[in-house]
Amino acid sequence: MTLTFEDFRPGPFGSFGPRHVTREEMLAFAAEFDPQPMHLDEEAARASMVGGLCASGWHTCALMMRILADGYILDSASMGATGCDEVKWLAPVRPGDSLRVRMKVLATRASRSRPDLGFVDARFDMLNAQDLPVMTLTSHLMLGRRPAAS
Amino acid sequence: MTLTFEDFRPGPFGSFGPRHVTREEMLAFAAEFDPQPMHLDEEAARASMVGGLCASGWHTCALMMRILADGYILDSASMGATGCDEVKWLAPVRPGDSLRVRMKVLATRASRSRPDLGFVDARFDMLNAQDLPVMTLTSHLMLGRRPAAS
Repeated sequence: MTLTFEDFRPGPFGSFGPRHVTREEMLAFAAEFDPQPMHLDEEAARASMVGGLCASGWHTCALMMRILADGYILDSASMGATGCDEVKWLAPVRPGDSLRVRMKVLATRASRSRPDLGFVDARFDMLNAQDLPVMTLTSHLMLGRRPAAS
Repeated sequence: MTLTFEDFRPGPFGSFGPRHVTREEMLAFAAEFDPQPMHLDEEAARASMVGGLCASGWHTCALMMRILADGYILDSASMGATGCDEVKWLAPVRPGDSLRVRMKVLATRASRSRPDLGFVDARFDMLNAQDLPVMTLTSHLMLGRRPAAS
């Protein structure tokens, strides 16, 4: 069944993952998008504030996206998102970490101008295998609505 | 010269890029991180609300990161960022777009607990070649400080 706007109600929505993240993919993302020493250079990372190699915050966001895509989005009437708020990188994501995402719906609102569209505000918490929160963010999602019965 | 916390003051800071984005890299990012039809499937994208293939919002964030890394971060005492606010995906990023980023410093604050660290809040506006804003966000940066003269 494809999830539509009507299936989202305030409260806990689900938990998705885990997704394993390897050193190789962390280094590949950093080389392409965020070549700061703490993401790319083992030795420099050890000497830095984070004390060792860690994933770019944007890589962490991208991994969350993939976990959610596999978790429910590809099975939904998702029409994307307008943006995010309160993106917080709380703890370093390390090579070999296993990441999960908990989703909670905060609020829903039908579009006034488009009868086929609804808005869902959701909070996402990403945890590592030790249950330590590594990232949290709030996203403003757009979902297709079920056609009204005629 | 390496930029430190002291070099950031409220006001316009600079403009960085352009960075060209190809269809191939958009599809590669989507396949790895955000395999929704509007990012991965030309025909489905045309039928969607965005009316054609467009970059994942997270790819747009990652491209902004790379533009800023090349623009000033790799030449700075950057210690990363604690997070972002008001991430807004304003218009679709299309294959072949050329992206620039304008940076404005909003506020700066020396750390109370760490004399070698300062915080910089900055707003980033990403524009395409038609000067249309495609994304905006506010980020909370950490910068190393210049050692005090003894």
